[in-house]
Amino acid sequence: MYLNSLLNCGFKGKIYPINPKAGEIFGLKVYANIKNIPEPVDYVICCTPVSFATQLMRDCIAKKVKVVHFFTSGFGETGTEEGKQLEQEISSLARRNGIRIIGPNCMGIYCPETGLSFAPDFVKESGSVALICQSGGNSMHLVREGVRRGIKFSKVISYGNACDIDECDLLEYLAADQDTELIAAYIEGVKDGKRFSQLLKEVARVKPVIVLKGGVGEAGARAAASHTGVLAGSNEVWDGLLHQAGAIRVHSLEELVDMAVTFAYFPLPLSKRTAVLGVGGGATVLATDDCTNAGLEVPRPPPEVQSKLKSYVKRAGVGLSLINPVDLSAQGREPDVFYNCSKVLLEHEGIDLLLIQLPFDIPIIPSSTAKTHGLMLPTKEAGWDIIIKSIIKIHKESDKPIAVVIHSITYSESYQDMLNYERMCYEAGLPVYHSLTNASKAIVRFIDYHKRRARMQGLI
Amino acid sequence: MYLNSLLNCGFKGKIYPINPKAGEIFGLKVYANIKNIPEPVDYVICCTPVSFATQLMRDCIAKKVKVVHFFTSGFGETGTEEGKQLEQEISSLARRNGIRIIGPNCMGIYCPETGLSFAPDFVKESGSVALICQSGGNSMHLVREGVRRGIKFSKVISYGNACDIDECDLLEYLAADQDTELIAAYIEGVKDGKRFSQLLKEVARVKPVIVLKGGVGEAGARAAASHTGVLAGSNEVWDGLLHQAGAIRVHSLEELVDMAVTFAYFPLPLSKRTAVLGVGGGATVLATDDCTNAGLEVPRPPPEVQSKLKSYVKRAGVGLSLINPVDLSAQGREPDVFYNCSKVLLEHEGIDLLLIQLPFDIPIIPSSTAKTHGLMLPTKEAGWDIIIKSIIKIHKESDKPIAVVIHSITYSESYQDMLNYERMCYEAGLPVYHSLTNASKAIVRFIDYHKRRARMQGLI
Repeated sequence: MYLNSLLNCGFKGKIYPINPKAGEIFGLKVYANIKNIPEPVDYVICCTPVSFATQLMRDCIAKKVKVVHFFTSGFGETGTEEGKQLEQEISSLARRNGIRIIGPNCMGIYCPETGLSFAPDFVKESGSVALICQSGGNSMHLVREGVRRGIKFSKVISYGNACDIDECDLLEYLAADQDTELIAAYIEGVKDGKRFSQLLKEVARVKPVIVLKGGVGEAGARAAASHTGVLAGSNEVWDGLLHQAGAIRVHSLEELVDMAVTFAYFPLPLSKRTAVLGVGGGATVLATDDCTNAGLEVPRPPPEVQSKLKSYVKRAGVGLSLINPVDLSAQGREPDVFYNCSKVLLEHEGIDLLLIQLPFDIPIIPSSTAKTHGLMLPTKEAGWDIIIKSIIKIHKESDKPIAVVIHSITYSESYQDMLNYERMCYEAGLPVYHSLTNASKAIVRFIDYHKRRARMQGLI
Repeated sequence: MYLNSLLNCGFKGKIYPINPKAGEIFGLKVYANIKNIPEPVDYVICCTPVSFATQLMRDCIAKKVKVVHFFTSGFGETGTEEGKQLEQEISSLARRNGIRIIGPNCMGIYCPETGLSFAPDFVKESGSVALICQSGGNSMHLVREGVRRGIKFSKVISYGNACDIDECDLLEYLAADQDTELIAAYIEGVKDGKRFSQLLKEVARVKPVIVLKGGVGEAGARAAASHTGVLAGSNEVWDGLLHQAGAIRVHSLEELVDMAVTFAYFPLPLSKRTAVLGVGGGATVLATDDCTNAGLEVPRPPPEVQSKLKSYVKRAGVGLSLINPVDLSAQGREPDVFYNCSKVLLEHEGIDLLLIQLPFDIPIIPSSTAKTHGLMLPTKEAGWDIIIKSIIKIHKESDKPIAVVIHSITYSESYQDMLNYERMCYEAGLPVYHSLTNASKAIVRFIDYHKRRARMQGLI
């Protein structure tokens, strides 16, 4: 699997497969032992059974390898004396011989720039978001979901039991890494709380740090101990620690991605004064509730702005709200209506950010059904195309932040549409979310984060 | 669109299209006026422009029609004197002549039993969940999303401005309706708060009532007024009112569907003692946190249960938690492992409900990719098939409640898989959720609802 990932993601260095059986794989010569490789080796990915770990470490030391990544599990996380001792053994071998270990019990490194990767489907494009993740499965999901949402990564490190290189080393490295502008972290536990707390404070001063703490209750901590062999620490301690350090605490993978998208795509709004624009009367009512519940303001615009909006909507006032929130319903699909209304809202000085909500169940009839039954209604595709292109156009012309929420996906046809339109949006620099609740919360946290920083720097 | 919906959904009565141009449509004779129809007419769906509304009402009265549904908008929700007066006119015509109105400004009725429908893709199967919904768009989304999640409806009424038949009439009707076991409601505002409050109390005594109140903030209320012409009322008043009545208040469409799924599929657990079982170390840690945060207990099972679990898992303890939560990771895909572990957990007297979490990003390699690269890993399909079939099998054998959470969907391939497996589950009587956070919250609310009812009835 690793070999495949390296080949698929275009690893730029030389690759030496090692297996006692030797032979050939994917056209590459297989070496029976690392010692047989004629050239120097920097980095070793170890997938052997745990019983071979110590011997491999010795071989790597002899070969002057710099880093060994142990995918291999069966160490401290087993809770057994034997497992703990083995972990102790490889880490003291590392320390005594100046070789570094990633893991054990982890997926290792994804670095698109060099083509290092732990899944064959990871993209080759580099970006500015770094992720450290104590769980292999979560790291894979976060990369895939992140990429789908338009996030590109500088470095992703799944670091497991952290017997040598730990979250502190990684944070320190990423704080200094010029390719990284934002750090996200999934952490189950730390070994040196004092160092972590001190370091996080320093790192968070330099770059935004988003932290998801796994294992917060007693049962979750029990799971974390079995998973990566860590002491999880109490929820309250973590709350205090993260808040004091100025890190952004999230509580789910979804929230982590939403925050990362916001930091990666959102320009800083001047205020929380929001215009809500979208399709569907009930959807607009609920979107507005979500915004105000999260702490955004949705102010009523002055009469001249209302009149302008009215002038662009043919059947104004027929079940449509035009007083912010603005609901265009079916009329949003008519050419220019969505564009013109967005423009009016963004040009109004009382509005500093535009939140657009698009329920992908509307229009009512998918094009295929419409065709089957000879219906003359605008098809789903034509309708959404006009709206998405209007949003991209107005986004190019305005410097106020715009967020797009695509929600209410039911059919797999809508899911596929959503993926396409989502890509069109983020390629044009627009953040896309899938829940009004999550979008408005993430945006408020983003604004509050920047306010707090400005306050700390004495700017306001 | 309505004609198409009636034909597609197999409307069992006679259909008379009416249009001044007469002629023929979909093989049906079109009448120029309702008066020309030779037989009696029970129900009229009005899609004319608003200016024809009063004349149509008079024609319907002459024809002795029982109910007129106005899809037509442009009444009270416009906020204009003219619109309000028109609404007043049709409703007083109705009252004086013993004819009833649904709407105006709404989608009307979906009743699968009779084939009455307002969208051509609505299913023909009847069920026991009723929905009243002041928003047309929300009603369509709730039907589609509900059906996708295994909910079948008795009656759905999108009732808009409610100038005649209102939420109180509908609740009263549904409380007495023998086909309805659960009532869900999306309400933007009520005209007679006192009647509503009194009635809701009575209805909630007979059947569970789930309420989503739209328009809770000032801006949301403004939107609701434009949408259906209602006074929205304050959030606090609604909170008190719904709590006192014993209704279940939800705050999003998603939560409404999650609660409905729980009521429709979940047998009442004896307690909150939960076993968490699934795939993926980090996913299991987060699932457990979600459960305990929501108020479920995830107790450590006694050593004999742990030993039994261990005996079924070949590489026990290698990064796998087997002490509740139980993480089987890749081993869950091996035949019988998932089944045997579920059985052990369900047979343990200290466990009253089983929550299964399946992140659909795992296994790592979609079958197509695996094939392209000649990989020997178990394919996605084979892996999930074994797990889903195990769950369905153990569900048939055990009477303790099981909830399935399918999450972490990234690729459209996974989305399609999810739709298929979701259907397999609910057809076997299993509730499926898409978020651990939402699932655990819904289950806790369900248990608390039944506890409160038992307390009120003096049972505990």
